Amino acid sequence: MAIQKKENHFYMTNHAFVMKAEGLKKKLNTQTEDPTAIVSVEKDPNAVFGWKAKKIADIESLTEKSYGKGQSLIIDFGDHQVGYLTMKIRPVGSPPDAPLHMRVTFGEMPLEMGEDFSTYDGWVSSSWLQQETVHIDVLPHLLQMPRRYSFRYLKIEVLDTSPKYTVAFDEIYCETVTSADAKKITSLTTTDPMITEIDRVSIKTLQDCMQDIFEDGPKRDRRLWLGDLRLQALANYETFKNYELVKRCLYLFAAVTDENGQVSSNLFVAPTLIPDDTYLLDYSLFFPVSLYDYFVATEDSDTVKELWPTAYRQIELAFKRVNENHLMEDDVSGAWWCFIDWHPTLNKQASAHAVLIYAMKRAAELARAVGDDKQVADLETKIAQMKKAAIEYLWDEQQHCFISGEEKQISWASQIWMVLAEVFDTEKSRQVMKTLLAERPEIGPVTPYMYHHLVDALMLIDETTVARQIMQEYWGEMIEDGADTFWEAYDPQNKGFSPYGNNLFCHAWSCTPTYFIRKYKMD
Amino acid sequence: MAIQKKENHFYMTNHAFVMKAEGLKKKLNTQTEDPTAIVSVEKDPNAVFGWKAKKIADIESLTEKSYGKGQSLIIDFGDHQVGYLTMKIRPVGSPPDAPLHMRVTFGEMPLEMGEDFSTYDGWVSSSWLQQETVHIDVLPHLLQMPRRYSFRYLKIEVLDTSPKYTVAFDEIYCETVTSADAKKITSLTTTDPMITEIDRVSIKTLQDCMQDIFEDGPKRDRRLWLGDLRLQALANYETFKNYELVKRCLYLFAAVTDENGQVSSNLFVAPTLIPDDTYLLDYSLFFPVSLYDYFVATEDSDTVKELWPTAYRQIELAFKRVNENHLMEDDVSGAWWCFIDWHPTLNKQASAHAVLIYAMKRAAELARAVGDDKQVADLETKIAQMKKAAIEYLWDEQQHCFISGEEKQISWASQIWMVLAEVFDTEKSRQVMKTLLAERPEIGPVTPYMYHHLVDALMLIDETTVARQIMQEYWGEMIEDGADTFWEAYDPQNKGFSPYGNNLFCHAWSCTPTYFIRKYKMD
Repeated sequence: MAIQKKENHFYMTNHAFVMKAEGLKKKLNTQTEDPTAIVSVEKDPNAVFGWKAKKIADIESLTEKSYGKGQSLIIDFGDHQVGYLTMKIRPVGSPPDAPLHMRVTFGEMPLEMGEDFSTYDGWVSSSWLQQETVHIDVLPHLLQMPRRYSFRYLKIEVLDTSPKYTVAFDEIYCETVTSADAKKITSLTTTDPMITEIDRVSIKTLQDCMQDIFEDGPKRDRRLWLGDLRLQALANYETFKNYELVKRCLYLFAAVTDENGQVSSNLFVAPTLIPDDTYLLDYSLFFPVSLYDYFVATEDSDTVKELWPTAYRQIELAFKRVNENHLMEDDVSGAWWCFIDWHPTLNKQASAHAVLIYAMKRAAELARAVGDDKQVADLETKIAQMKKAAIEYLWDEQQHCFISGEEKQISWASQIWMVLAEVFDTEKSRQVMKTLLAERPEIGPVTPYMYHHLVDALMLIDETTVARQIMQEYWGEMIEDGADTFWEAYDPQNKGFSPYGNNLFCHAWSCTPTYFIRKYKMD
Repeated sequence: MAIQKKENHFYMTNHAFVMKAEGLKKKLNTQTEDPTAIVSVEKDPNAVFGWKAKKIADIESLTEKSYGKGQSLIIDFGDHQVGYLTMKIRPVGSPPDAPLHMRVTFGEMPLEMGEDFSTYDGWVSSSWLQQETVHIDVLPHLLQMPRRYSFRYLKIEVLDTSPKYTVAFDEIYCETVTSADAKKITSLTTTDPMITEIDRVSIKTLQDCMQDIFEDGPKRDRRLWLGDLRLQALANYETFKNYELVKRCLYLFAAVTDENGQVSSNLFVAPTLIPDDTYLLDYSLFFPVSLYDYFVATEDSDTVKELWPTAYRQIELAFKRVNENHLMEDDVSGAWWCFIDWHPTLNKQASAHAVLIYAMKRAAELARAVGDDKQVADLETKIAQMKKAAIEYLWDEQQHCFISGEEKQISWASQIWMVLAEVFDTEKSRQVMKTLLAERPEIGPVTPYMYHHLVDALMLIDETTVARQIMQEYWGEMIEDGADTFWEAYDPQNKGFSPYGNNLFCHAWSCTPTYFIRKYKMD
């Protein structure tokens, strides 16, 4: 899978949309969080990533010890935090006759405290590793670290002081930030502790990703991706109900498009709004889908009217890949044209075909809302043609499943998306899902993102019990494996899996169990 | 030589003196300095520290190249700078999808660009090494580094960007700071290029050490030491004439003393004024000496009156080490009681004895100025007694030199200080110096600080030609060895010598050639 990198990156800006989005940017909610314990982090072959944290002292004892050259400590904040760190540092001994040189490492999980960052060899830039070295010239000092971190654990290594003094830490705290308002959360009525816990961790995940935008992961990337936005927005409607933030994000996407009007898969919002040069078919199609979900949640028809042309344009552009047989064409060049899931050998043709149908159905609803009957009719014709093509070219009656690409690959993703696209009626879709869960093809879901669609497909065909069981097993096992917030990638068959060699342990698209629990009252 | 480190460090504060010193703290003069070239630094066995800088490109070409993971560049500012660095950093390629992670290293000399700081194993804390790692989340960025650095060379290493972008540097500059005013410097009339150059480098050294206080070295320590202050003040009177800064420093020393009233060898001025817990006999005695020099330069009798009790107290306290034979007692415990020079095996007894006589002579002048005839008489009696004792116990007529300590060590320092103390008349002192320069005992001067006293002693006995020759050879050779400013330690016999394993290449006590050149009109 090649990354997209455009030598000449042009884009169009709708200034009025930029200003509208800017107006919807509100101050963040802050809260001071204190650490809960001093811990040691040790190797443990039974832990998912090989490392375990163990409490060694009460946090109240923090001020009692001082640290000199070569000494270190690890602080546990008790839960995942996103925010700014402050440390009150006091010299012990003679007046400090040399600066304090410290290394500060932030980790979401114990492995980030245990492993040496200098040996990192992942796909994603090492510049995301949350480690700083700091010189402090004058002590005592109130160190207010300027960057935002995503972490539960904090390692402080004193690289050098001088033979004449050591340092003690009188206070260490985190000023957390989020655009979520915890007061909006209503209590569940369930007595099932696992459902309660999955709901709590989902909400915490969403909360920590809700900043000036819906970020994909607060530790890394921190970007607004359409695929994540769509799921975050769904979870948000059932929990924090921050409709303004969704509206802001929709305007941001519509504000910057390529020369054809395609919305980017993701946006940079600093130093100014810039669309990334990565364009993905499914992510662009999630613009009309997200606008539809927003309309259902808010009935804000003014926004729909204003953003409808952008939404419809995504459908039109996706049709450039649909051939005369009404079939989505596969990409054989190896380009990264469509996301679907992080599985390295997944063929995307069938899924992409289904996503377009799925998006068109929602686009038709929007066309109806803005009163464009011609577009409604046109979309409905195309939906019917593409459903027919799906059955004609991508359905294998023999094997009772959808196939994808030249090599007729059978994957979970193809079945799930075809069910979500409602290519078949409910009964036949139910058979597709039953075959899928019985046959369990090798090309399976590797992220909570794909698991969301699996559960969503099962809910759509009223397989509530199986849906609940899969949700409980998958997200529940992540909690048992130590998740304070849900991870970007999690494959129960291969727990160390990460698409980058460095997992995100708080990731937007993993927050949707609370959506299912609350929307479908899974109490 | 053991460092002094007091478990219970008490000191007395004279609040009125603190406020007076605070009032004398004035804004610094700033200037923007641009780099002059892009260089490479290469190993060179003929260079003093084994490394040589070589220009590889005009600075104008800086913006043309961009740097990705693992790439680096070295910038030459053309001269020594003390100040704050700014870099304007621009991303090249796709929008930056990961932070920029950079290592920035500042060096006064090429060796600091060439050698790997991680292998540093010197005596002084590694926290002084001028190296930062920086993460920049949003690009373009105007990086204004918050710490002050002392450097000529700047190495920028890009540790990581991402495969999608690199960075270019559009502007790099240094905002220099000093409390010296270059407009006060008058031109020399000499046509000797070496004298002109030694004078220029001396003044630059002094200028870069003149900040809120007279610092010993702007790269490291950055502290107000009495031994340095005394020499800086002398050079300052002949050049920048910043009398207020000297006055401020004298008040700072007098403001904080130990419970007996002894001034510390050095002060910390941040976060608040604190005397270091290192007390040195000679340095404390340089308080009355420096006050005397200040009086000669300014005729400010109000200050002398106010600080005279503190000055006289230093003499009284030094007398605790003078025995019933009027002889300074040696220390046999190995404690660091008196500085004199960095030579590791130098015995300090004779030098300390002489420094006390030297200080008493100046104290007697101050007593006269404040009109205390009793103290004048008392000091003159003691001077006579100690001169006599020097000849009786520390003069070896046979060897025609002063000896020091139980093992009757013969050193340059003992001869030089006895001459400066005027124990003998001018003619006999001249013989002492002649013997010294002929015999060249092994325990020689290892710093410009001791060389200052050697030249000063020669000037005192009117050996102007020899004095000028030594000055020219010693400081001139440092310039030939690459000094942009004069170094803390320099031993022509052992050029790599440093008392810490990491030399200061801009150091206060090395700035005095301009004092000799200008005071004695060595044109």
